[in-house]
Amino acid sequence: MRRFLSPIILLLLFAGNITLAQKEDSLVLRKIFTEAISDTTAYHNLRYLCTRIGGRLCGSPQAEKAVKWSKTTLEAMGLDTVWLQECRVRHWVRGNTEELAAGRGTSAAARLHACAIGGSVGTGKAGLRAKVVEVADFDGLKALGRKNIEGRIVFFNHPPDPAHYNTFGSYGELVRYRVAGANYASAYGAIGVIVRSATVAHDDFPHTGILHYADTVKKIPAMALSANAAERLAGLLKATPGLELFMNLSSTEYPETTSYNVIGEIRGAVHPERIIAFGGHIDSWDTGQGAHDDGTGIMQAVDVLRIFKTLNLKPACTIRVVLFMDEEMSQRGAKKYGEYAKAQEELYKSQLASGSTGAPSGEARQPHSGTHHVAAIETDRGGFTPFGFSIEATDDQIVKIRGWKELLLPYGLYSFEKGGSGVDIRELKSLGVPLLDLVPDSQRYFDYHHSARDLFANVNPRELQLGTFSIAAMVYLIDKYGL
Amino acid sequence: MRRFLSPIILLLLFAGNITLAQKEDSLVLRKIFTEAISDTTAYHNLRYLCTRIGGRLCGSPQAEKAVKWSKTTLEAMGLDTVWLQECRVRHWVRGNTEELAAGRGTSAAARLHACAIGGSVGTGKAGLRAKVVEVADFDGLKALGRKNIEGRIVFFNHPPDPAHYNTFGSYGELVRYRVAGANYASAYGAIGVIVRSATVAHDDFPHTGILHYADTVKKIPAMALSANAAERLAGLLKATPGLELFMNLSSTEYPETTSYNVIGEIRGAVHPERIIAFGGHIDSWDTGQGAHDDGTGIMQAVDVLRIFKTLNLKPACTIRVVLFMDEEMSQRGAKKYGEYAKAQEELYKSQLASGSTGAPSGEARQPHSGTHHVAAIETDRGGFTPFGFSIEATDDQIVKIRGWKELLLPYGLYSFEKGGSGVDIRELKSLGVPLLDLVPDSQRYFDYHHSARDLFANVNPRELQLGTFSIAAMVYLIDKYGL
Repeated sequence: MRRFLSPIILLLLFAGNITLAQKEDSLVLRKIFTEAISDTTAYHNLRYLCTRIGGRLCGSPQAEKAVKWSKTTLEAMGLDTVWLQECRVRHWVRGNTEELAAGRGTSAAARLHACAIGGSVGTGKAGLRAKVVEVADFDGLKALGRKNIEGRIVFFNHPPDPAHYNTFGSYGELVRYRVAGANYASAYGAIGVIVRSATVAHDDFPHTGILHYADTVKKIPAMALSANAAERLAGLLKATPGLELFMNLSSTEYPETTSYNVIGEIRGAVHPERIIAFGGHIDSWDTGQGAHDDGTGIMQAVDVLRIFKTLNLKPACTIRVVLFMDEEMSQRGAKKYGEYAKAQEELYKSQLASGSTGAPSGEARQPHSGTHHVAAIETDRGGFTPFGFSIEATDDQIVKIRGWKELLLPYGLYSFEKGGSGVDIRELKSLGVPLLDLVPDSQRYFDYHHSARDLFANVNPRELQLGTFSIAAMVYLIDKYGL
Repeated sequence: MRRFLSPIILLLLFAGNITLAQKEDSLVLRKIFTEAISDTTAYHNLRYLCTRIGGRLCGSPQAEKAVKWSKTTLEAMGLDTVWLQECRVRHWVRGNTEELAAGRGTSAAARLHACAIGGSVGTGKAGLRAKVVEVADFDGLKALGRKNIEGRIVFFNHPPDPAHYNTFGSYGELVRYRVAGANYASAYGAIGVIVRSATVAHDDFPHTGILHYADTVKKIPAMALSANAAERLAGLLKATPGLELFMNLSSTEYPETTSYNVIGEIRGAVHPERIIAFGGHIDSWDTGQGAHDDGTGIMQAVDVLRIFKTLNLKPACTIRVVLFMDEEMSQRGAKKYGEYAKAQEELYKSQLASGSTGAPSGEARQPHSGTHHVAAIETDRGGFTPFGFSIEATDDQIVKIRGWKELLLPYGLYSFEKGGSGVDIRELKSLGVPLLDLVPDSQRYFDYHHSARDLFANVNPRELQLGTFSIAAMVYLIDKYGL
């Protein structure tokens, strides 16, 4: 009787420990929240990035400036290691001529709000003029056939279905025309393509984004049209049979150039070889300031490290911010980081076999050699009020994360659903790394996305920092309890 | 064996029914969602109210225009009954002189962004000039004592605590200085009071709102200062001992006048005497357009009726929209509606005793005589993405509402917490009516609240309509299952 505790007492003791641990976690999360929501560093850094550097397409001088400035910013934070990771990137330049007009002859031309789709070839200086055929989707091309399309400009006018709660659902149905519309149209002999912008907003702003030319068809110039302009053009086409479009684009693809991922970390106090990585992408489209896409993401990720330092939280694992280069065009930064992580994992495994993992890497403060990713978190859905995380992991890992729900609910984090991960961390999937994406409110994201409205002025500082808190809290819990 | 079903089979049948009912509800909610998110009537009506009528303080010509326009709008919807409910309202006019400057002598005067607090007395044409004493709170007055306050202007500079997830928490800590600051300062002999705006934003916009003068002290002029101006003034006070403030306000209180609640309803097909009421307030502050406060609320409530008609949903109970007059100053509309509801409840009870409830009210389409409120829903926290409802009801009723959570979660509604209700429906509390308040994301609300930024342009149409859906869904479920 004195040597054995009854199962009930054991259970009570165990429950007591859980409660104590939860109470401690709850207090730490409150500190993290208070620090995140009270501090303005991330917001002011975002202001600098957006208004002083601006849109920063990979390969551009602005992207280079952003890399240098980010590295300097991380270095000033007193992190353990800050380094650049080289990658080759495309160098596409929009040029200074972007013109789309509808009419018959110049005098009747109606200017339409439009911009080049990223990666588009130019039209040549003279531009191109042709009759236009409107279709709602790829089947529409098939129905028309080559004889009605050859030598014309194809106009993909697919309106968004508003009836998705998550606007990414609407976007997913539209983006195919931007990405692949040029190929489909070209295959039928079209000489140009214009695409209604992939947005749920009804506005005058064209929304750009990448297209991918297939090797099998002729590359034709491609423009995105604002939603309002698309409806106007549809009206003109009904009223004026034989309407012509005039397209003029000076966009050019230059040879590839060198750029960088920017990486900074706090070395793990117990397991320097175990990495919890989180980040967003440092490049952006050139049409706006790259505020919500993805200035907010990288500022949140960087601010997680600031918060750990400020609160003197000593993570057991290494916590690492990765600012990925070139998410928007070809994800070269993501691929580079993925290759690096794979090589490190191999090394880690061999160290594991020889019992030498986690050995100090020396004073030079190079990144630890032989590392294993415990988890990776991406934030690239805008700096809006977060609802939770989308999780690409095993069922057991998802159950474990959901076990933290009561701790996170006071901060509006209620959703922990299985779902696909962002392209920057997806490269780590083959290593079996649990991948998490921050899920903020999506209602306004596509109002700004890839357009001239993606401005610092459209970021709310509290919404931004709720995202910072969410990532910091998740990093804290993963560091403490593993996955 | 053939006459009695086993409890397990009964349970299965019961479960089957639940599942079928849930499936049907789920389909109806999807239809409601699709209709709400696809239709633009509410958004365009909001545009008209905000940009063509504008700010509409009770007693103003704009408030009268808003009443007439709303009644006409409701009448055009083909509802069963539309009527006005008369109430007496205050008639305070801001006037055209609002000036606050700090300095010593006119030449050194620094203009500060400020506006009259609603209900403030004017300063007289000459304005008033006096030394200023800054305090953080009411205790600060006590510490200074009458000798340091008498004949001066008191400056309440209480910064917001950002560390509330819900910004209403921060607001609740600040609003007391706006509401009662004049009384506290006057009690110590101050001749004027200025109050840092009750907002979590750091901006140049003063945020107005009501004050309540006590009968026991002299009424002194009161102004609200923008957050940035408050910090600037605090800096000036540190740098310049003996600094004076110059206050000039031409605001005036005129005799009370007549105004109206605007009410419209769809008569219940089964229980015309049972009322599910929902609404917001038609009046607003005069500084902005009254968009989020509370143009969005009344447009959502009106749109619920449009959706029921469009989808041909025939509610068993009467569903009623109430556009309350004068939420911002004295809640006269709410009081009037509360008195009406109480009298109707008495009549209903006597009909119940005589077995004559629900008897048809005749062809004149007057509101049903002898009614009982099943529930009331208020929407007055801005047109942002909704999270759920705050519920003032019995524990059993809250449990019942939470039972619908799985149906509502696909639309982001996850929070159904016990909490206080809004002032417009609170009058029904003494009748035991379950009260629900729509709870949207609060992060941006106090950026706009009571300021010149409360504009139609700051309303997102999808966020607006998610609120409309939420109320319509709740009305549908309460109508079907009761509370």
